[in-house]
Amino acid sequence: MSQSKAQSDLLPSWNDGVAKKSIVEFVGRVTKKGGRDFVPPADRIAVFDNDGTLWAEQPFYFQGLFVFDRVRALAPQHPEWKDTQPFKAVLENDMKTLVAVGLHGLVELMMATHAGMTTEEFERTVKDWLATAQHPKFKRPYTDLVYQPMLELLAYLRVNDFRTFIVSGGGIEFVRTFSERLYGILPEQVIGSSIVTKFEVREGRLVLVREPKLDFIDDHEGKPVGINKFIGRRPIAAFGNSDGDFQMLEWVTAGTGARFGLIIHHDDGEREFAYDRASTAGKLDRGLDEAPKRGWTLVSMKKDWKRVFAFE
Amino acid sequence: MSQSKAQSDLLPSWNDGVAKKSIVEFVGRVTKKGGRDFVPPADRIAVFDNDGTLWAEQPFYFQGLFVFDRVRALAPQHPEWKDTQPFKAVLENDMKTLVAVGLHGLVELMMATHAGMTTEEFERTVKDWLATAQHPKFKRPYTDLVYQPMLELLAYLRVNDFRTFIVSGGGIEFVRTFSERLYGILPEQVIGSSIVTKFEVREGRLVLVREPKLDFIDDHEGKPVGINKFIGRRPIAAFGNSDGDFQMLEWVTAGTGARFGLIIHHDDGEREFAYDRASTAGKLDRGLDEAPKRGWTLVSMKKDWKRVFAFE
Repeated sequence: MSQSKAQSDLLPSWNDGVAKKSIVEFVGRVTKKGGRDFVPPADRIAVFDNDGTLWAEQPFYFQGLFVFDRVRALAPQHPEWKDTQPFKAVLENDMKTLVAVGLHGLVELMMATHAGMTTEEFERTVKDWLATAQHPKFKRPYTDLVYQPMLELLAYLRVNDFRTFIVSGGGIEFVRTFSERLYGILPEQVIGSSIVTKFEVREGRLVLVREPKLDFIDDHEGKPVGINKFIGRRPIAAFGNSDGDFQMLEWVTAGTGARFGLIIHHDDGEREFAYDRASTAGKLDRGLDEAPKRGWTLVSMKKDWKRVFAFE
Repeated sequence: MSQSKAQSDLLPSWNDGVAKKSIVEFVGRVTKKGGRDFVPPADRIAVFDNDGTLWAEQPFYFQGLFVFDRVRALAPQHPEWKDTQPFKAVLENDMKTLVAVGLHGLVELMMATHAGMTTEEFERTVKDWLATAQHPKFKRPYTDLVYQPMLELLAYLRVNDFRTFIVSGGGIEFVRTFSERLYGILPEQVIGSSIVTKFEVREGRLVLVREPKLDFIDDHEGKPVGINKFIGRRPIAAFGNSDGDFQMLEWVTAGTGARFGLIIHHDDGEREFAYDRASTAGKLDRGLDEAPKRGWTLVSMKKDWKRVFAFE
């Protein structure tokens, strides 16, 4: 069995086609000792968006749904929320307004619902929610909605001495609660949006307290900035699905030497969801137009993935 | 040869004594399968201060000396610096004033001398300086002044499946220029103070530009905050030398299970420098008093280190 055959066997949920071929060829090129495009292991860094790239993001970002549940749970203690946006919209299930306020509105909700919590309390709250909440369409825990082909891709890259990072617009401490368990990605390999935390003594114990103050938005132009801050080196491969990932792919593929960019197109309304240019979550417009001319691989979920979820 | 003998042999520059013994015993306990204090590899995280812990910091923090050199080099273009502090102090070699302005003053100098540079230009400037500048006492490149016993300790921990991180009060992008080469610590394993960077297009190229705006001070209470932000998990071992590391050691050793804290006491004026409570760089006062009662290992450079530098 040839090496390339063995390698493509590590991606059983990918149909044979241009997308799978481009992945296997890229990995083959950068790992071939003495080859023109060889990249030493220390530089084999691959970055992945999370929402819509590693797990689903419809009907809305799961962290958004988590925060909405928190608003509902805490509303009795905050009667003023009934008349204050964006809280009002959550309590009235007014998705149109929520979408209009965008990521900054979500961050505001998040800060309000978690202000004053320690990092440990926050982690417990997220884990409790993940253990109990169900996805409205699939009637399963959100953590079941990870993409099987992407799990195989992560493992395939790691077998080839890549280090895999998540670069998410979502909250860094939210994603870290499940990244190791779901993806085998350690907390230190998760980059995301963040609020400020403060070191203090509480009831005689040292704790880190989450403050209602924005620290960093890891989306659009923020993604290359976050990558530079946390990784300090330009990755050679980037995987995303929305225009929020555009600058990350742009930054990664503008480097010298072999580079790889990939965008997942959610075009499978039957097995998952079909959405792109007009979506409220994971809008993909510019990326769809520019992927071909920039040499980025465009994945059709419908055609390229044999299987979407492990439970299928 | 017993396992513990083999392990202590990995620390040839450490004299036999309480300090070396405490290190080897701790590593033995957390790596012993089935033992009461066993820690799985994913949680074996060790954090190291840089200045005064991995390399020297006298007569002043090396990054400070670098910044002073930059101020001198750029002064002709900034006639106003002659009359503005803290620039004036640099140009007049007035260390007393420079020490009084502290870390925040250093950061101000740093921002002024590097504002508008891309991250790549900054990296080149630092590398050029490291390649040419000489330490005033040792007449050698600053990069020669790394502590041989600490290099052995880093390697020893990694052999035992620890992941080693730097948590420095110094600039994250400064330390990253040499961390892999000097210590085998990848850029993503370096945490430090930072200024804000911005993603932009310059002369048709995508670049990250360093802005004259403070992002984060990774010192004192900032160290646990930085650890939480970058690593997202509490380390089990912390190594420092000054009161700037106090909260880091406090945070790390307050966790449950086996924990290890170590402070290096610079008491060797002959081979290196002797300083502690009254030092302008790397002041060690509270740590010296509290190390014994907190169970932290206190290393006497003079007694515990067979060799300080590799060039000896």
